[in-house]
Amino acid sequence: MNKEISNGVETKRHSLAHILAHAIKNLYPNVKLGMGPAIENGFYYDFNDLKISDTDLPKIENEMKKIIKQNISFEKKEVSKEEAEDLFINEPYKLELIKDLYEVGPRAISVYKSGNFVDLCAGPHINSTKEINPESFKLTRIAGAYWKGDEKNKMLTRIYGVAFNNKKELKNHLALIEEAKKRDHRILGQKLDLFIFDEEVGPGLPLWQPKGAILRHIIENYLFEKLSSQGYQWLITPHIGRLALWKTSGHWELYRENIYSPIEIEKDQYLLKPMNCPFHVKIYNSKIRSYKELPLKFAELGTVYRYEKSGVLHGLTRVRGFTQDDAHLICPPEQMDKELEKLVKQGLNILKKFGFKKYSIYLSTRPEKYAGKIDEWEKATKTLKKVLEKLKLKYEIDPAGGVFYGPKIDIKIKDALSREWQCTTIQFDFNLPEKFKMAYINKKGEKQKPYMIHRALLGSMERFIGVLLEHYQGALPLWLSPVQIWVMPISSSQKKYAKEITKQLKSEGLRVELKDDNETIGKKIREAEIQKIPYSFIIGKKEVKSKTVSVRERKKGDIGKMKIKKFIEKKIGFTETRSR
Amino acid sequence: MNKEISNGVETKRHSLAHILAHAIKNLYPNVKLGMGPAIENGFYYDFNDLKISDTDLPKIENEMKKIIKQNISFEKKEVSKEEAEDLFINEPYKLELIKDLYEVGPRAISVYKSGNFVDLCAGPHINSTKEINPESFKLTRIAGAYWKGDEKNKMLTRIYGVAFNNKKELKNHLALIEEAKKRDHRILGQKLDLFIFDEEVGPGLPLWQPKGAILRHIIENYLFEKLSSQGYQWLITPHIGRLALWKTSGHWELYRENIYSPIEIEKDQYLLKPMNCPFHVKIYNSKIRSYKELPLKFAELGTVYRYEKSGVLHGLTRVRGFTQDDAHLICPPEQMDKELEKLVKQGLNILKKFGFKKYSIYLSTRPEKYAGKIDEWEKATKTLKKVLEKLKLKYEIDPAGGVFYGPKIDIKIKDALSREWQCTTIQFDFNLPEKFKMAYINKKGEKQKPYMIHRALLGSMERFIGVLLEHYQGALPLWLSPVQIWVMPISSSQKKYAKEITKQLKSEGLRVELKDDNETIGKKIREAEIQKIPYSFIIGKKEVKSKTVSVRERKKGDIGKMKIKKFIEKKIGFTETRSR
Repeated sequence: MNKEISNGVETKRHSLAHILAHAIKNLYPNVKLGMGPAIENGFYYDFNDLKISDTDLPKIENEMKKIIKQNISFEKKEVSKEEAEDLFINEPYKLELIKDLYEVGPRAISVYKSGNFVDLCAGPHINSTKEINPESFKLTRIAGAYWKGDEKNKMLTRIYGVAFNNKKELKNHLALIEEAKKRDHRILGQKLDLFIFDEEVGPGLPLWQPKGAILRHIIENYLFEKLSSQGYQWLITPHIGRLALWKTSGHWELYRENIYSPIEIEKDQYLLKPMNCPFHVKIYNSKIRSYKELPLKFAELGTVYRYEKSGVLHGLTRVRGFTQDDAHLICPPEQMDKELEKLVKQGLNILKKFGFKKYSIYLSTRPEKYAGKIDEWEKATKTLKKVLEKLKLKYEIDPAGGVFYGPKIDIKIKDALSREWQCTTIQFDFNLPEKFKMAYINKKGEKQKPYMIHRALLGSMERFIGVLLEHYQGALPLWLSPVQIWVMPISSSQKKYAKEITKQLKSEGLRVELKDDNETIGKKIREAEIQKIPYSFIIGKKEVKSKTVSVRERKKGDIGKMKIKKFIEKKIGFTETRSR
Repeated sequence: MNKEISNGVETKRHSLAHILAHAIKNLYPNVKLGMGPAIENGFYYDFNDLKISDTDLPKIENEMKKIIKQNISFEKKEVSKEEAEDLFINEPYKLELIKDLYEVGPRAISVYKSGNFVDLCAGPHINSTKEINPESFKLTRIAGAYWKGDEKNKMLTRIYGVAFNNKKELKNHLALIEEAKKRDHRILGQKLDLFIFDEEVGPGLPLWQPKGAILRHIIENYLFEKLSSQGYQWLITPHIGRLALWKTSGHWELYRENIYSPIEIEKDQYLLKPMNCPFHVKIYNSKIRSYKELPLKFAELGTVYRYEKSGVLHGLTRVRGFTQDDAHLICPPEQMDKELEKLVKQGLNILKKFGFKKYSIYLSTRPEKYAGKIDEWEKATKTLKKVLEKLKLKYEIDPAGGVFYGPKIDIKIKDALSREWQCTTIQFDFNLPEKFKMAYINKKGEKQKPYMIHRALLGSMERFIGVLLEHYQGALPLWLSPVQIWVMPISSSQKKYAKEITKQLKSEGLRVELKDDNETIGKKIREAEIQKIPYSFIIGKKEVKSKTVSVRERKKGDIGKMKIKKFIEKKIGFTETRSR
């Protein structure tokens, strides 16, 4: 969904892919060509029989710059199948592509010639290499990639590059990448003892260490209190259910590639749940509902399991098991406007509480295949628009981007580096109420089908915590910090006082650790910075005497001596800060 | 584990099984005999070709009484195989049993004769029916039962009876059964909207409704706070893990019948976790541990899945998926005494908090097959004994009743009906530290294997809540009640004030519902009793005027008019009462 930084840069990227292949052919004439498209922020090209390492990249980059400086023009030519086969007689992968193209039907094929390099390509391209600033691109890395992305095929060597309109844009991008590296939540998670992955347990299945579990508990408790006060009711549902349930819901038919293989129990098949919805519907259906009970807002922190290829797993942000902050809003059609408005408003307030004040909003409309009736879709889409407009929220339309069961709003939060992260989704569902025959008794005493909305606000605890860590570079706000204060006596004669202070802070509901081992105070202070501890209390002779502590604040350093009571008045306050 | 009420009653029960069969033969001569043993509280007998219903039981009971009054003596006789086969020539099931007996090897067979009834039986029996008080037994129900308990065999008709030494004991028992029926948590769970089971989801998989989920949250939060303050650290681990993990742990070999069939992911097999232990060990092993960090106490509310036959599932007390309040204590051998003492003491205090002050304690020693070394077992068993004795706790030894990996203490709590429920278990583990090569660096800088204890205190949330509901007959203590107060205006002119009161109580952290629908106050009061609401506030004109509420307490009725502040002072107080 990222916009190109400026028009035409994609064409430049594509042309740079050709220039890369051209350079490779100059340097390694025997290499065979795969494919080379433009991608987000740059380009790549795949090669066969290319044995190189990262240290070869500058040499290749130089060769590309040489080509660019020759002001070579790009010329398009349409050729017949036979001409194409002649041109690429020594390029087996290109020959395969030509064959593929003709399997669809007879057609003209276009090739692009730039100097002595020619490639099978639909274009478009730049007119001449002089349009490219030689300082606006960089080769970034080498990776293995299966021909046509199919693991049954041969592994080729892929060279990735990034490219922009000018040097400055490239520099900004590289700086962002560097900054992002420092914020990599996988590294922070390890450094701060938050979570681990273990080969024997399996990829994509995080194990939360004590500090990570506290962080989750703080967030989950905050959600519990906040949503309870907003009228949500909590549910707890199992992690498996009979396959029959998912056949009824339609997920088995339409979502099977994300569902794990069934478990057999007493000749019956069960699935690890890929979503919580059918269970919530079962609880709704467990009694006759009256309009008087509606709206019902069912919430659950439900752990679901979905298949992802091991290759795409990424720390906490792409996992195989994750805990959704899931909710279902069930109400009569006429209540939906008002309820949705509350839902979006309250949701954005919660995101703000976590430090996310910027976001992009997308409204996805009816796709080609859909459940429900057209007029319901139109009404629902109108409702979503109306709510966004009433709340004066900017949004973009994603035409036909809705899920098959209803239109939706997606909110992508922007982190400190302006990167967008898909977290919140608010989706109409015309499918489940129909499939599970959901109903309520309306004012007239008649059975009526309710409207239902799925929504996940933070998305998943795993992903959201990954984003939080990157957003704050691990320096979480006080209320979210697993450890808020380190108490450090300078020498052993202050240990007793330090212990008392620790106890006192704990009794105030703060998360405190006493660091009274025999390290130097300097080392402890450095360690506190590394561990991103919000406050360190240093206790020497003077502090014992004056019944104070010397307070160091994360990033700020020394903020002076003070009494505990004053510290609490000044720096603590919200109940959430004190919740565990 | 229940003790017989008095000596000899088991013999009477066994003889009553014969008398039952005798009576059946008198009434239905063509019926074929199955087996008829004494069981807990009574006896049963299985019959083929017996078509009767509950309404026939009094008639059969009368026939039994007739037999008893004849003072028939029981005579034992040893017979050869041929004699036995002659005696039971018309009893195909008995002939099968005789054949089975001789398959083991040649032997004498004993039969018991009482009047004109004779049965294949090892005894012992009473001397004469006059030893049985005809008012001390009762036939209770009819059930289907497969011959030899094998579903491939024919279904026979089983008649159950209960029997005691005298009429009084029988009466007490029947009263207990009646009382237990009223407390059946499955019925209470439905009546109080706590949880449901659903056929399409699958048996043994509870779905928690909002009130049940709040109850779980209250308990879980209490445990979280309590155990955190006692130095436990919380973990969160996934619900699946690679099969390899369970091979390493030994569970795949020794525990497979309780584990569900594997899930295949990318050609690798994964299991739904039957226990949390290996995950906790993985987190322990994720870094080098020093003696300075020990003891480590890892806790998790981890949902595990274990196979149970659908026939033995029972409400919340026997399920297929349950959430253990699991913990692992890892420490150097020399710390174990002290840590175990704390663990048992703190554990009993927590049970007390939930209202369980009575329990039976069992210490189970080394079984024939075991992991670890004999001297370790002896040392560990001695430690367990020492701790129980130091805390002056009565216990019984269960010889060779330990699990293969270590000796254990089981604590069975006694409920209001003195029924015992297995909840707490504290188990040494010599297996996992060995299998996963757990270690810490001791004071001398050497690698050493730690001791590890598994413990579950409440056992599982599901089972414990089932027991809690039966113990309190659904009338949970204030701090555990999902809804603590109903606010009921008498007429619509008090609705506004009632709303204010509700808001005020909620802001005090109390769980309150406003009942302002147009039902009569009498109906609302009755409904509050049925729903076991601890307090009802009734608001009429007088209450509005005097800014008070009329308080009704569950079971007690009206306890007078008072101001909210006074009510809170008098009846509320503990922070747990106010936690959600």
